[in-house]
Amino acid sequence: MKLRVTVMPKNGVLDPQGKAIQQALGGLGFSGVDDVRAGKVIILDVAETDPAKAKATAEDMARKLLANTVIESFSVEVA
Amino acid sequence: MKLRVTVMPKNGVLDPQGKAIQQALGGLGFSGVDDVRAGKVIILDVAETDPAKAKATAEDMARKLLANTVIESFSVEVA
Repeated sequence: MKLRVTVMPKNGVLDPQGKAIQQALGGLGFSGVDDVRAGKVIILDVAETDPAKAKATAEDMARKLLANTVIESFSVEVA
Repeated sequence: MKLRVTVMPKNGVLDPQGKAIQQALGGLGFSGVDDVRAGKVIILDVAETDPAKAKATAEDMARKLLANTVIESFSVEVA
């Protein structure tokens, strides 16, 4: 089963990567870009076939490794 | 309007970040992780209100900046 873990900076946390992308887009001539937030997406292919169990395990993986829960939030969905 | 650009390594391209995550998960005692692919997600908040135009512009941004189209593929969706 495949799961998608999306990890984004928490709202209110400075996102230097997003700011850098926003500036670079401006430099390339793209206008009208009000905000950019940059994060990670991790596709997990797991042997577990029960969606609820797989999701719970993926959330545990996110808390322990994939996300820095002090400054990042994460969401898990079946891909 | 918000758009989500997801950038992933192309199939067949080695994904060292994914491999590192997979090993680290094993080290933390998570078993049954068959594969891990790691990529980027970029949330663009743009002034454009027409979804088709906004999507076309975001695809152009992806080709020019957000993705290295030699080794990465991208998808754009309205967030």
